[in-house]
Amino acid sequence: MKLYYAAHTCSLATHIVLEEVGADYSVERISFAATQQRSPEFLKINPKGRVPALVTDKGILTETPAMLVYVAQTFPKTNLALMDDPFAFARVQAFNSYLCSHLHVAHAHRMRGTRWVDAADTQAIEAMQRGVPKAVGEAFEMVEREMLKGPWVMGEHFTVCDAYLFTLAQWLEADGVVPARIPKVIDHRKRMSERATVKKAIAQELA
Amino acid sequence: MKLYYAAHTCSLATHIVLEEVGADYSVERISFAATQQRSPEFLKINPKGRVPALVTDKGILTETPAMLVYVAQTFPKTNLALMDDPFAFARVQAFNSYLCSHLHVAHAHRMRGTRWVDAADTQAIEAMQRGVPKAVGEAFEMVEREMLKGPWVMGEHFTVCDAYLFTLAQWLEADGVVPARIPKVIDHRKRMSERATVKKAIAQELA
Repeated sequence: MKLYYAAHTCSLATHIVLEEVGADYSVERISFAATQQRSPEFLKINPKGRVPALVTDKGILTETPAMLVYVAQTFPKTNLALMDDPFAFARVQAFNSYLCSHLHVAHAHRMRGTRWVDAADTQAIEAMQRGVPKAVGEAFEMVEREMLKGPWVMGEHFTVCDAYLFTLAQWLEADGVVPARIPKVIDHRKRMSERATVKKAIAQELA
Repeated sequence: MKLYYAAHTCSLATHIVLEEVGADYSVERISFAATQQRSPEFLKINPKGRVPALVTDKGILTETPAMLVYVAQTFPKTNLALMDDPFAFARVQAFNSYLCSHLHVAHAHRMRGTRWVDAADTQAIEAMQRGVPKAVGEAFEMVEREMLKGPWVMGEHFTVCDAYLFTLAQWLEADGVVPARIPKVIDHRKRMSERATVKKAIAQELA
């Protein structure tokens, strides 16, 4: 498998899970600074012009929640998505879905406001940026209060959710979220950062 | 199973799939007009204050992509999520993920702008509303061009993706999307609307 990634993006989640399962994979960096994600070459890989994308022997996959579960399902012994238990798996899926459709979306209003308003409307773009600490903060507080069981997201069992939460938790200070309000999330992030798989994935992305 | 829903929301997708699998289920309406989704009673069901929520004998589930796959997995013979084939399943998941994190989010900027900016900033709220036709239109055009294989989303096989796309396609005219630009989506919506399961779910929600 080959992972197209960009540094400091949600592609890190899939990267960590590829390390966790011990997959045979390679990575290819896409430079956002050079807007390589919009190049004709990359649009053939992912017409949406986003990372991550995962090239498999069956075809190309996109969207983090789909990719995380695909990698877990491809290495069933690791049981990283709890797929044998439909309800536990649904909880994994609900968590990932909340992260992609709420938490990550709230974050995106800081730097990607032109997805939703005219790029020339700087007042609206700035209004979105001002709203980020509250919107992202509330999403993390929901994770803290209702979702993160501890020690891992789903309790005793490490899952793909941990890689995904850790990845989005990289950005919370820059988003203006107050760490003291989400101590479980911060503790989780610290423990994740000490895992060999996480260290290796991050080092590879920043190399 | 018991589905908490509100009329004209994405809860219709799970409702249709409950019909498709022949589940034994009941529905309970949440009135958005009375902001019942924020009532202390409903917040015990779903702390996020949103529909849908699905009460199962194992616990409560939220988030449409998770619920759709859970219902499909609970009735494996229907094969509505193609779960036996990891790559096909990942494609189902990627589609659902795109709908929840891109298409539905773009739509939400029309009526739920206060999720991201201060409610008092009417200029920014209105800027978001003006951006909806373009943002939602581009998401539907991506579905039209890159995802909807035909006759169903995943090709010959009807899946949960069809129920989800149909549900979000209910709103496209109100969002200012030009139907002529997405003929396959419009044709899909028409064929979906003729299914007995879809008719029954809609009739039940509007009763």
